[in-house]
Amino acid sequence: MDEQNNIAILGLGLMGASLSLGLKQRGFSGCIFGYARRKETRTQALEAGMVDEVFSDPAEAVREADIVVICVPIWTIVQLAEQIVPALKPGAVVTDVGSTKSELLKTMAPLFKESNARFVGSHPIAGSEKTGIEAGNPDLYQDRLTVVCPSEGAPKISNLWKAVGSEVVEMSPEQHDAMLASTSHLPHMVAAALARSVANGDPRKKAGFCGTGFKDTTRVASGSADMWVDIIDTNRTALEAELGRFHEELQGLIQILHDGNQDDIRKWLEDAATDRNQILKLNRVLKR
Amino acid sequence: MDEQNNIAILGLGLMGASLSLGLKQRGFSGCIFGYARRKETRTQALEAGMVDEVFSDPAEAVREADIVVICVPIWTIVQLAEQIVPALKPGAVVTDVGSTKSELLKTMAPLFKESNARFVGSHPIAGSEKTGIEAGNPDLYQDRLTVVCPSEGAPKISNLWKAVGSEVVEMSPEQHDAMLASTSHLPHMVAAALARSVANGDPRKKAGFCGTGFKDTTRVASGSADMWVDIIDTNRTALEAELGRFHEELQGLIQILHDGNQDDIRKWLEDAATDRNQILKLNRVLKR
Repeated sequence: MDEQNNIAILGLGLMGASLSLGLKQRGFSGCIFGYARRKETRTQALEAGMVDEVFSDPAEAVREADIVVICVPIWTIVQLAEQIVPALKPGAVVTDVGSTKSELLKTMAPLFKESNARFVGSHPIAGSEKTGIEAGNPDLYQDRLTVVCPSEGAPKISNLWKAVGSEVVEMSPEQHDAMLASTSHLPHMVAAALARSVANGDPRKKAGFCGTGFKDTTRVASGSADMWVDIIDTNRTALEAELGRFHEELQGLIQILHDGNQDDIRKWLEDAATDRNQILKLNRVLKR
Repeated sequence: MDEQNNIAILGLGLMGASLSLGLKQRGFSGCIFGYARRKETRTQALEAGMVDEVFSDPAEAVREADIVVICVPIWTIVQLAEQIVPALKPGAVVTDVGSTKSELLKTMAPLFKESNARFVGSHPIAGSEKTGIEAGNPDLYQDRLTVVCPSEGAPKISNLWKAVGSEVVEMSPEQHDAMLASTSHLPHMVAAALARSVANGDPRKKAGFCGTGFKDTTRVASGSADMWVDIIDTNRTALEAELGRFHEELQGLIQILHDGNQDDIRKWLEDAATDRNQILKLNRVLKR
């Protein structure tokens, strides 16, 4: 990455703090400007040496920045973009870390139309159920895949993610959203539906009989509702298609149970294990 | 537990080895007789001091035993029971560790009818995705819940599980199977259906885009198919009811997505998180 660049990071939660720490730890020598809504977060970021300057106004934070990374839930990205566009340097490139891309890019296009700055969508596939600046981890993006949507300015953003250890892949917003609906949003919805279904309105009755299987299968259902409302809200069509496919898998199982052939049950289970094991084996982070 | 008792453990995999190690470590002074099909397992159990004597014939293993614990998959329990019934001491109590109880108890009843021994169903809610004698863990049952089905001989079996640290609850086989269909068998089936659905016949295409959410949500789908075929096969009716309930949760979500009201999405997600957090908080092992 061009070391002459200055970077503004808007939002210093898990994603923003990890980006800042990752850049600093890898010797990035440009300036990092931070924006956070809460005063305590700004103080903490400055005291930890995570950023060089902090701002309570996002427009102030971006004035000298060549690259701006917005690290907040999806609909909040749009609100921040509205505030910063008039303050951006000509030629500045703005990106984000949101988990869906199509609706966001459609909403951003008119905002940047009259501007000399550009917006590029990105999504680093990395996270944690932990939140906030304390969860910041300089290696969060190391070896992870980051999707960057092709457009003018994309190479600069790809280099940013590579600088913190990410592998970068270019994908259209539509392809991205369909892919993530399957690999991320569906597992989240299924985990949440499972927690609701097992509790069945009375968690007290079931708690003692749940084991580690229930705990792991539903782990992500305890994640941030703020973040997930926006993800689901902006990827409904693709998610509905995935829910339909998942429904067919369940119907297949119900049919097998009705027919009562042990060999069919065994094959259904073995295929599921093979599918999972293959996915883990082919994923360079998960196979560890 | 009565220290004058001798115990036979049939099957020295995860469950059997853990029971044996748990008794020895807690100072049980009776004899432990072990049966395992494989010679290497018998040698290993003896050399590790896990059992006092080993046998290649299950009938030989039970001759001097006051309590017999059968630690193998459900339909194999029945096969072993057929072999040992003629060799049992009068007054001996036989139990098992199988994950379903109704069909097993129905199948066992005629086998024990002409015998002076008794069969008592039990199910310690403890496990691991690890298998085999090497996975044996003396604390596997510590603080876990064990279900014992009420019948003559049940107090003796309850004391056995208490001796390795379990809390014991009495439940009818039907109540047990309905409960576990929800808290254990449904999560397993959902995890397997999810792995199949995400892979969608081509795990290669999706692998790079799966994260830790997918990994944890599907973890149990990599478990032993041998064990799970029998569980599902013997609890089909209760599992179908739970799959129906789960289906309704998914339909509720699909309706909310159609309606497109953000507040409804948020409430659906928040209720799921509350359900999961409540269950974990009320479960003395999972809350750790």
